[in-house]
Amino acid sequence: MDVPSINPLDEATGARDVFLEIDLRRGYLRRNLRSALREAIQGGRLVAGTRLPSSRRLSADLRVSRGVVADTYDQLAAEGYLAVTERQAPIVSAVAPPVPALTATERPMWPVDFVATTPDVALFPRRAWLRAMERAMRSAPNAAFDYGDHRGRYELRAALGEYLGRVRGVRIDPERIVITQGFTQALDLLCRVLRDRGATTLTFETPSQPNPWTTVAAAGLRLEAAPVDDQGLITDRLAGAVGDAILVGPAHQFPTGSVMAPARRAALVAWAKQRDRLIIEDDYDAEFRYDRLAVGAVQGLDPGRVVHVGTASKTLAPGIRLGWMSLPADLVDEVKAAKSAVDAGSPVLEQLAMAELLKRGDYDRHVARARGVYRRRRDSLVNSIARRLPGLRLDGAAAGLHVLLRLPDAVDDIAVAHAAEARGVRVEALSPMSLVAAPERGLVLGYSRLPAERIDGAVEVLAEILREAGALVRRPQASSS
Amino acid sequence: MDVPSINPLDEATGARDVFLEIDLRRGYLRRNLRSALREAIQGGRLVAGTRLPSSRRLSADLRVSRGVVADTYDQLAAEGYLAVTERQAPIVSAVAPPVPALTATERPMWPVDFVATTPDVALFPRRAWLRAMERAMRSAPNAAFDYGDHRGRYELRAALGEYLGRVRGVRIDPERIVITQGFTQALDLLCRVLRDRGATTLTFETPSQPNPWTTVAAAGLRLEAAPVDDQGLITDRLAGAVGDAILVGPAHQFPTGSVMAPARRAALVAWAKQRDRLIIEDDYDAEFRYDRLAVGAVQGLDPGRVVHVGTASKTLAPGIRLGWMSLPADLVDEVKAAKSAVDAGSPVLEQLAMAELLKRGDYDRHVARARGVYRRRRDSLVNSIARRLPGLRLDGAAAGLHVLLRLPDAVDDIAVAHAAEARGVRVEALSPMSLVAAPERGLVLGYSRLPAERIDGAVEVLAEILREAGALVRRPQASSS
Repeated sequence: MDVPSINPLDEATGARDVFLEIDLRRGYLRRNLRSALREAIQGGRLVAGTRLPSSRRLSADLRVSRGVVADTYDQLAAEGYLAVTERQAPIVSAVAPPVPALTATERPMWPVDFVATTPDVALFPRRAWLRAMERAMRSAPNAAFDYGDHRGRYELRAALGEYLGRVRGVRIDPERIVITQGFTQALDLLCRVLRDRGATTLTFETPSQPNPWTTVAAAGLRLEAAPVDDQGLITDRLAGAVGDAILVGPAHQFPTGSVMAPARRAALVAWAKQRDRLIIEDDYDAEFRYDRLAVGAVQGLDPGRVVHVGTASKTLAPGIRLGWMSLPADLVDEVKAAKSAVDAGSPVLEQLAMAELLKRGDYDRHVARARGVYRRRRDSLVNSIARRLPGLRLDGAAAGLHVLLRLPDAVDDIAVAHAAEARGVRVEALSPMSLVAAPERGLVLGYSRLPAERIDGAVEVLAEILREAGALVRRPQASSS
Repeated sequence: MDVPSINPLDEATGARDVFLEIDLRRGYLRRNLRSALREAIQGGRLVAGTRLPSSRRLSADLRVSRGVVADTYDQLAAEGYLAVTERQAPIVSAVAPPVPALTATERPMWPVDFVATTPDVALFPRRAWLRAMERAMRSAPNAAFDYGDHRGRYELRAALGEYLGRVRGVRIDPERIVITQGFTQALDLLCRVLRDRGATTLTFETPSQPNPWTTVAAAGLRLEAAPVDDQGLITDRLAGAVGDAILVGPAHQFPTGSVMAPARRAALVAWAKQRDRLIIEDDYDAEFRYDRLAVGAVQGLDPGRVVHVGTASKTLAPGIRLGWMSLPADLVDEVKAAKSAVDAGSPVLEQLAMAELLKRGDYDRHVARARGVYRRRRDSLVNSIARRLPGLRLDGAAAGLHVLLRLPDAVDDIAVAHAAEARGVRVEALSPMSLVAAPERGLVLGYSRLPAERIDGAVEVLAEILREAGALVRRPQASSS
C-alpha cells in the first residue's frame, strides 16, 4: 500500500500537522481519502475551524485528479464534517470528541458448573438443526422473508398445536398461538397487555427464579408472593392474593422441583374462575420426566383462563431464543398487537426449522436422547449426595435439570456458594430466590452439564465446604433454629 | 388400526354413551388410552361427575392389562382430569368447555404491489445465507448456544463496528453496540430506557411511517411532530420542541425521500447539544443510493449524543429480524438491561451468519447487486411517471426503495389508494403518515417489487384513477385550494 502523508494545513490557520494514511490504488483512492479525512476530523486530529488545502493544492500534492478531491470535499460537506463556501477551501466543522472504548466482559468458565437453569448446550443437535434450516430454506415461499403475521409462522403454530396436544395435553388451535423469543418475552408481552387492561400486580411463586421478577417490574407491575411446598403452589393460601394474574410452574417448579398435586391443580383452576384471575403456566422443562409420564399441562383444564408458555430453551438450547404461548381467545389480539409494537415478529428461519423438527419427529427423538443423558446424570448426583451428604434433605421430583439441597436455616447459603465458587464449583444459593423476608436456605444443584464421572468429586467439594460451614450434622432438624 | 369403541359408563350415573378411538398396537396403547380419555373429557363428551368404569372392567373390555388402565387413571388424576378415591372407580372432574377456533387470516397478494417499506424478498440471498449459517454452525463454540451477553454476539458486534465505520462513517466500538430484532425493538428499548429516565415525549418527523408511533405510544411516551421538507428535518422550527429525544431519518427520510442537508445536520447536532437532547438516527435504507456515494451518518458528528440504528430488513429481508444500535456510552448499560428484561437476547445463529456475511464481503456484494436492480426499477418508474403523470410533482432522492408522488391538497389520497386496490394495485396514501391536522396529499410509490416490465402498466392504472379523481391537471398549483 502506497501511504503518503499529507499536510492539509493552510499557512493561515497555524494548526498542528496532520498525517493521513491514504491508499492510492485505483478504485480505493476516493473511498480512502474520504475515510482518512473523516477519521482525522472524528478523532480530533483535524480540529474545528481548520481550513483544509484547496482542492487544487491537495490534488497536486496527492497527484490525483482535482475532481476526486472536490468530490471528497462535497461528500464530507454533505455529511456535516466540512463547511464549504463557494470558491473557498473548506473549513473543518465542530465534531464531538471520540468516545472511550468500554471494557469487554467475558463470562467466566467453571471447572464444575452446577448451573440449574440451562441444558447441556453441548447436546444441541447441530446437524439436525442445520438440516431443518436447509429444508426450510428450500421450501419457504418468498413471502416468508417479508414482514408477516405477528403471531409467527403458521407452519410452526400448526406443528406446535399438534405437539402440545399430544405431549402436554394442551388444548389449542394454531390461531391462538403466538411465537416469542423465549419465556422472557412471553412474560413481557403478557405484562404489557395486563397492565394496559389495568392490572397492577402479578402473583409469583416463592421461591422462584429471580430473572422474571425484573421483567415484571420493568413492565410496571408489582410482585406478590405465594408460597410453594413439595406439592407445588399452596392453593389454600391464595385467599388473600390480589394479583391480577398468577404465574405458576406446575410441571416442575423452579427451584423446589415439586410437581403440582392433582387436588391443587383443580383448586387453582376453581379459584381462578371464582376470582376471575388469569393463570400463566410456565411449562418449565416439562419434557424431562424420568420416572413416569410427564403430568399434562393445567391449560388443558381451562384453556379460556390459562396461558400456557413453553420454550425450546431447555429441550434444544437457550441461544435459539424460541418460545410460544397458547392463549385464551380474548387475549390473542392484544398479545399480537403487543408483539407488533415491541419487535414486529420473530425471525422466520428458526420458526420454520423448528416446525420441520417437530413434523419429522426429530424433536421427539432429540428430547428422548437428552432425557436419557440427564437421567443418568441425575442418578449419579442423587447417589453421590446420599453417600456424602446423608444428613441433608434433597428435594425435587425425578424430572428436569436440577435438584434442591436443603440446608438448615442457620447456614448462610450465599456464603457457601461463594466458598464453592472460590474452589471452582459454580452453584446457586436458594435464599436469593425468595420473595419473602425469611428465606429458606439451600443450594440449587443443576446436573445438566456435569459429566457423570465428575459429579462425585464436585459433591465432595460441596461436602467439605458444608462441613466447614457447620451445615453437616447427623440430625439436621435439631440444628435448625 | 384396531379401533374398538368403549362405553366407560357405570350404570349408576346414567350419562350418555361415549366412544373412544383407541389404537391398540403395542407401544401405543398406553399413550392412546390416555389421549382418548383426556380428549373426551376436554371436548365435553365425558361430562363432570361421570364415574368411569373400574380399571378391572375397562381392562377386560379392552383386553389389556389392568396395570395399563390403572396407570392411565393415575396419570389423568395427576393432571386434574379425574378425581380418584381409593378403591373406587374415578370420577370425571369439571373442565372448561372447548374454545372455538378463530378464523385464519391471510395477507392478500396483489398483482401490482407498490409497497414502499420492504425490499424485494425474492432477492434474499438464500444460498449465501445458508452457507453463512453452515459456517457459523461449524465454528460456533458450544457456549454460543447458551444464554449470553444480552448485547448480542461479539462476532457480529465486531463485524458491524468495522462495517458501519467503513460504509456509514459511524464511530463506534463493539462494546457499545446492541443487537436487536430490527428497528422496532431498537425503538422500543430506547423508549423504555428514556421513560425510566423520566422522559415523556419523543419528537417525530412529520410525515413519517406510522408503525413506530404505535411502539412509542405502547411504551407510554407522547409524540410531538417536527416538519420535514425536501432538505430533511426543518431544524429552524425545533425551537419550541419539548421532546426528550428526536427520531430522524437523515439518510433517506420516509416517506418524503429527502436527504438531510449539511447545514441542517450541523444545526441538529448543535441544537441537541445546547438543549441536551438525544438524537435517534434511523439509518433507513441508507445503503441504497443510486446517483452518488451515500451521505454518512449523523452519528459520526457526535457519537456521545446520537444513537445510530440500522437493520438488515431492507438490505437482506425483514424476516431475518436483525437490527443494531450504536449507543452513546452512558446508555449502554441501561439498554442492555432493558434487552435482558424484554427477551434475554436475540437468536445467535442469525447473528453469527450475519457476522460471516459481513466479514467475507458477501454482504457488500449482495447490497451492490440489489442496488443495481432497484436503480433500474426506480429509473423505469420515474420515466413512466414523467410520461404519464407530467403535471404531478415527484419527490425523493435517487435512493432507497420509494418515491413520493405529490397530489393537490383537494384530492383525497386515501380514496385514490382504495380505488387502486380495487383494481389490483396496492399503494399507500401519504396523508395517514402525517402527525399534523392538515396533512399533505400524495401516494408513496415503492418500486422494490415491481419488475421493470410491469411498472408502466401499473402507472397507467394510477393515471386513470387520478384522472377520475380530478388530480390530473396541467398546473397542479392552480387546482389546490
